Parts: sequence; structure tokens; C-alpha cells
Amino acid sequence: MKTTSAWVGAIVGTAILISGTTGCTQSDDKNTVKIKSQNQNGVSYTNANTISGLAANTNKEDPLTFVLVHGSWADANFWSNTAAELKKQGHTVYVPEYAGHGTLYNPSVKHEDIVKSVVDYITSKKLKNFVLVGHSFGGTVIQKVAEQVPDRINRLVFFDAFVPLDGQSLSDQLPPELQKVFGQLAEASGNGTITMPFTFFREGFVNTASESLAKSIYKNAKPEPATPLVQKLDLKKFYGLNIPKSYLFLTSDTVTPQGDKYGFHPAQSSHLGQFRLILGEGDHMTTAYEQPGYLAQKLYQAARK
Amino acid sequence: MKTTSAWVGAIVGTAILISGTTGCTQSDDKNTVKIKSQNQNGVSYTNANTISGLAANTNKEDPLTFVLVHGSWADANFWSNTAAELKKQGHTVYVPEYAGHGTLYNPSVKHEDIVKSVVDYITSKKLKNFVLVGHSFGGTVIQKVAEQVPDRINRLVFFDAFVPLDGQSLSDQLPPELQKVFGQLAEASGNGTITMPFTFFREGFVNTASESLAKSIYKNAKPEPATPLVQKLDLKKFYGLNIPKSYLFLTSDTVTPQGDKYGFHPAQSSHLGQFRLILGEGDHMTTAYEQPGYLAQKLYQAARK
Amino acid sequence: MKTTSAWVGAIVGTAILISGTTGCTQSDDKNTVKIKSQNQNGVSYTNANTISGLAANTNKEDPLTFVLVHGSWADANFWSNTAAELKKQGHTVYVPEYAGHGTLYNPSVKHEDIVKSVVDYITSKKLKNFVLVGHSFGGTVIQKVAEQVPDRINRLVFFDAFVPLDGQSLSDQLPPELQKVFGQLAEASGNGTITMPFTFFREGFVNTASESLAKSIYKNAKPEPATPLVQKLDLKKFYGLNIPKSYLFLTSDTVTPQGDKYGFHPAQSSHLGQFRLILGEGDHMTTAYEQPGYLAQKLYQAARK
Repeated sequence: MKTTSAWVGAIVGTAILISGTTGCTQSDDKNTVKIKSQNQNGVSYTNANTISGLAANTNKEDPLTFVLVHGSWADANFWSNTAAELKKQGHTVYVPEYAGHGTLYNPSVKHEDIVKSVVDYITSKKLKNFVLVGHSFGGTVIQKVAEQVPDRINRLVFFDAFVPLDGQSLSDQLPPELQKVFGQLAEASGNGTITMPFTFFREGFVNTASESLAKSIYKNAKPEPATPLVQKLDLKKFYGLNIPKSYLFLTSDTVTPQGDKYGFHPAQSSHLGQFRLILGEGDHMTTAYEQPGYLAQKLYQAARK
Repeated sequence: MKTTSAWVGAIVGTAILISGTTGCTQSDDKNTVKIKSQNQNGVSYTNANTISGLAANTNKEDPLTFVLVHGSWADANFWSNTAAELKKQGHTVYVPEYAGHGTLYNPSVKHEDIVKSVVDYITSKKLKNFVLVGHSFGGTVIQKVAEQVPDRINRLVFFDAFVPLDGQSLSDQLPPELQKVFGQLAEASGNGTITMPFTFFREGFVNTASESLAKSIYKNAKPEPATPLVQKLDLKKFYGLNIPKSYLFLTSDTVTPQGDKYGFHPAQSSHLGQFRLILGEGDHMTTAYEQPGYLAQKLYQAARK
Repeated sequence: MKTTSAWVGAIVGTAILISGTTGCTQSDDKNTVKIKSQNQNGVSYTNANTISGLAANTNKEDPLTFVLVHGSWADANFWSNTAAELKKQGHTVYVPEYAGHGTLYNPSVKHEDIVKSVVDYITSKKLKNFVLVGHSFGGTVIQKVAEQVPDRINRLVFFDAFVPLDGQSLSDQLPPELQKVFGQLAEASGNGTITMPFTFFREGFVNTASESLAKSIYKNAKPEPATPLVQKLDLKKFYGLNIPKSYLFLTSDTVTPQGDKYGFHPAQSSHLGQFRLILGEGDHMTTAYEQPGYLAQKLYQAARK
């Protein structure tokens, strides 16, 4: 939790703004809850209160625009089912492919090429007032995209995503031994890519999937360009941005070892300072294929105002 | 986990009592499970065993008496929906308002005034054999109430609650930077109260709520008197009490940073020594408004014998 | 997380094998996902992709053979309901009783006697290609059984189980103070057994149960022979085995204090190195009695290929 100060910084920033006003409205008479209590100092639970009636309205959907950024060993198809569900719920959805991946496959792509792809996509389509979602490695992509087009973005959603601190790489978020193995795999590949052993993928990335689904997802994963995973990122600007942030964590995700030190939540999430936590069931990749409607709901909870 | 010894102390206390009797009844012949096994040393899973038949009875409700103590930035209305659900399930429910809050609003209230309110409520109504529930700051209240009327209480339920150790304040349970911010907000208020910035409240206290519900709950929160949050509490007597304890943790609660160091569970919960853990879905405040039936069920699981 | 190296070791082992082949098939043209994108670099979420169609097949059950090994303060009947559910789902199930427990009750049993019981059961029945499940103390049993009959076992499933490192005992996995209490209880018994105080059992082992179910389960628990819990185990061979492993953790289990240091997950689970994580709701013992169908599903997810 090295970044508690960033978190508090965010609070203080807002706090000063508010405490500098003439006060708050909560103590106004008209906002005071009037209760008819059965007892002098008690509350009658049979009387309605002014808030309870609101619960019925909470499922009213607020149409949003989503830009979905996939992670490593994946391409834009990763989002197909989830995007369809979001659209069905009335949202507008954009799923950019980015340099080095999918139809743009290129083993020697760099992190800045990937970021440029997404920024170009956003600017060429004149997208604004959208929620930018990054999955896994995509967390590092949306950090850098946000630095370039901050005013277009309403909220950043990190979904089981890496959140390097300033000067760090994605690889720096992993246990040292795993960093070493990825380095060895990249070297052995001859072209700077990493192909995960199936067993590691099956147990770590799609642990809740059937074997057949696991194999299908694996079969579609191209060797991942290693350079963007080890590049140290200048994130000074990102950590100064004032964009609201959410972290969606699916609790069976074991891509990083769970727990305080390496877990997506709370280790990676805590880098964000103040953020909205949304928890769900699922693992790193299975949920997007098997339960896209559920994932869409969770993304909406993370994305809404 | 500094209080492991307290936990073990609780075990040893009971253990000595039991090991001092003539033994246990579990080895009596009549209690031995008789099984017809297909194999010499195996068990036939097609035969019923003496325990399996009991599962059907486990939902039989045992009517209880609840006294519900709310937390900060709230008043007795916090419990309205949940109390109604508990009553619907056949339980008796009391929801005392306490000094400085709700109808008794007073910015300069002290912790001992709050405790006195609840104790007076309990004694004036001659309540006994009840389960005392404290939410959030209410955890510190029920600790001190339990010191004064221990014989009236069947069980203490801490619900996403603070559990200071002896000599600590609620504020001591928070990250140092957050303590500082709350101090600054209290100073800036001019009357020793804390008004949370809406953003902080929305992301930290009602993260799973819709924006409209978040705003409604926020609007009803009066500036919180700061003194009771920073008063160091003498809890020597509390930590010597022999009242059964439960901790109900809703897993999306991010009022304190999640994890081993500051999380309601396991950091605050572990202060209790031996306790019954009940987990549920939800955040700090939304669940009481939006899913009171679910919360009532969880409270019952925490409260029953 | 001392055993990260073991985890990575498992990856490296597989990785070398794979990187030594002629490469991976994922970059073959025929495996490349063909997408008709609405946009140059985007993906059309209205087109089906090659993977989405698979989701429908994931519930097809793959019949497995299970050997279920119970834990302490239990006997083979612990599995009765769950075994019946697994059988109903088409699986073959074996539930060996082991030395010192149930019909073979003996206070002075040793860990090696228990292991021998299970190995003899397996070899006499000529069982092979099965999934070996160990619950709680049973985790230490399946570690040692796996050392003796590794080629018969398709996968090891640790269910809320202890996973001592080489040279450790089960007791070594517990907080020091709790180790001491168990030692005192064993001594006080006069015959080297441990009878848990009911309160400790009710709050720690069956925290989500009704009081009546808690009492019934407790009544059937014989005093547990203490020796196998404190014997230091030579596990060198186990930690060199290449058998796939899963860890099933029911998130309300509080037999060990939850958190990074003593929690079944991630503390015990991390000893396995690479493993498949399956999470579920439930506590240490209640779920097997009350929700055997749910537990059977979770065991299947942990056990399948």
C-alpha cells in the first residue's frame, strides 16, 4: 500500500474544494429525516423513511459509451460476447484492435505503438464522454491513453488489470521468479515472443473453464510480443490525472498470486489511490466467454457515475 | 493478528472447563455412527447417515431480539428497511437513536454520551437476552455498552465494524494519511464535524449503489461529530468479557483499505479473538437500503446460537 | 509465499518441454480468428467468433473417479452426502476409512498407519486414473499417498486442506498459541487425543450452520488422535512429483485465521506451487452436510482435466 498517499491526496483535493464552500446542505431542516418513533429515541421500523423508496429505481440503466481494451494473449475478439451484451443493454461499445495483436499481429511491437493505436482510434472516431476499460495488460494501455486524451474520458475501469507505478513495467508487478521465466521463454522463442505452456494457461488464466473451452481459448492465443510487457513506463502524468477510477476484480483470478503482495486486488488496485471496487465471480478469461451478460453487468456497475 | 493470544485465551478458558469434566460423550457407543459399508474400510454413500437428515431443519428460524446500533454519517433510519425485514421473519427489533445523531443531533457529543444513550435505552426498556449489533463506528459503541450491561447480552455482532484494541480510537484503525485528512476536515469545519466529500463517500461507502441512491444516502448524512472518532477508549473490561461474538463482513466494503493490514476482515475482526465469521455480498451502506432482506438473513446467521 | 520457486519450477519444467518443440500452433493461419470488423481496426461484436459457441458445451460432464479422504474429527461418513451427489452426476466414488478413525478408531494411531490404510485400499481395489481429494488434515494424507502411488493419480485436490512443506507437521501450519492449546488438550486427555470445546468447534468449523446441525456434527466427532497432527513429515518426494493439483477453498472457512499468513488460501494453497484455484461459498464442515450438490459441483470443477 505504498500509494496510500495518492489515495489520500485524491481525497484532500476534493475535500479542500468542499470545505472551502459555505458548508454542506445535510444539516438543513428540509433534509433532516422526519421520523415518527415509537420510542423517545428510537426509530419505528414500520414507517417508511425518505431513502428506502429509492431502492426500486436503482436498476434503471444509464446508457454509457464503452471503449474496451483487451490484454495479452488475446485480441479484440476477447470482448465479442461482452460487447454484444452491453449493446443489448443499450450501451454504445467500441472495441479497438491495437498494434501487434489480432489482425495487426507483429512480434516486435512496442508499448507506444499500442497506445498510439488506441489514441488514433479514439481521435479518428471523435469519441468522447466514454468509459475506458482495460483488461489485464490493457491496464497499462489505458494508463498511457488517459495521459494523452484525458478530457475525453469519463472514467477508467481496470478489470483484473495491471497498474504499474511510475517507472515500472507490467513485469515488475510479478514475482521475481515468474519475471525470470517469462524472460527465458521470450529468449527461447527466437523472435521475442512468449508462448505460455498450456498447463500454466489452463490453471492460471482459465481455471474455472471446462477443458474444451480452455483449449479453444488457448488455441486462439498467438505468441505474445514480450517487449511491451517489460518496458518501463513513464506514468507521472497518469498519477496526476483527476479521472474517476474503478477496479473490477473477479475473485478466482489467479494470473498473479492472490494476496496482499501480488494479487490484482488489493495489490494492483491499491496503486490507483481512490477507486471504486466492484467484485465478481470468475477468473481471468473464462467469464468473458462463458458469462458475458454477468460480466457486462459488473462492467456497468464499475462504469456508471 | 496481535490478539491471537486473546483468541486462544478464549479457547483455553473453555477447554479447561471441558477437559476438567469426566470426558466427552462422543466416544459413547450410541453416538458412534453405524454404517453399512460396501467395503471393509469404506463407507457406502447410498446409506443415509445420522447427520444428513438434519440439513432439512436448518432453516427453522429461532426468534431473537435484536438491538441495532448504527454508525457514523447515519442515524437510526439506517436500519429501517433491515429492521422491517427482521420483524417480518419473526424477530423483535429495537433501534435506539443515540446522542449527537439524528433527532439528537449535536456536533460536540462525546463517545461516553453515545454509550450512555444506548445503555439508558436498554435499561429503561428492561431489555435482556438480546443480540447487540454494531455497524461501522457502532462497533466501538457496542464494545463499551457490553462493558456496562454484559449480562443482558447473548451475543455481540460486529457488522463491517471497527474493533479498537484497549487504549485505541476508531481513528487509530485507519491509515495514518487518512487520519490526518479527517483531522483537517474536522478543523476546517469550524465546529468539530467531518463532512465527507461526495466522491469519497460514493466510491468508498456506497460503491455498489446507483448514483441516485448514492446521492440520496449522502444527502441524509449530517456532518459527523469528530470527537467520538478520535477518543482513545479504555477497553480493558471489554477484552475480559465472555460474550460470544460474530463478525459479519460484506466483501465489497472498502471504507478501510482491504487486505491484512486495514481490512475490516481480517484486520478488525481478528481483534475479537474467537469469533464467528459470516461473509456476504455488499458494501458499507448500500446493502441496508437495497437488499434489507438479504442483510437480515446474514444478521440472523451471525446472531443465532 | 516461500514456495514461489516451486511454482515457477513447475512452469519452467513444462515450459522447457514446450519451447523445445518446433513451436506453437497458435500462429497458424487456420487458427487465426477471422473477423469481419465494422471498422479498420475494430471488431464487430455482432459477428460470432470461433470461441463463443463453445460456452454451451461447458457443462457436459466428464465422468471421473474420485477417492475422497476425510480430515480430523471426522470419519468416512463426512463424505456420504457429497459422494451420493457425485455418483448421481455419473462419477465413480470411493471413500476409504483410514486407521484410527471411524470404524477403525484408535487413539494411538500414527500418520504412517493412516497413509498405509489409504494406499492399501487403492492397491487392493486396483484403482487407477482417479482424482484424490483430501479435506483438512486429509491434505497431509494425500501428500504422502501420492508419494507411494503417483502413477495411479490423475490429479490431487486439496479441499480446505493443510499442505505442510517438507519437514513440517500439520500443527506447524497453525498460529503458535493454537499449537500450544492443542498440546495442552492432548496432554489433559490422558490418552493423547484432542476434544475440541464445543464453542470453538461451532464458531470455527461450522460457523454457517444452524445450532442443531452444529451440535449433531459435533456429537459424531470422536476425540482426535493427536500424534498424526504433530508428526513432522518427510515430503521431499511429494514436492518433486509432477501430478496436477487443485485447491478448493470455501471462503467462510475459519479453521485457520484468514489472511496471508495462516489462511487455507493463500497461505496453505501457495505451498503447492502451480495449482488450479476453485473458490466456493461455505465453511469447513457445514457445506458437506447441507449443500452436498453444490460441493460436488465445486469438486468436479477442481477435479476435471
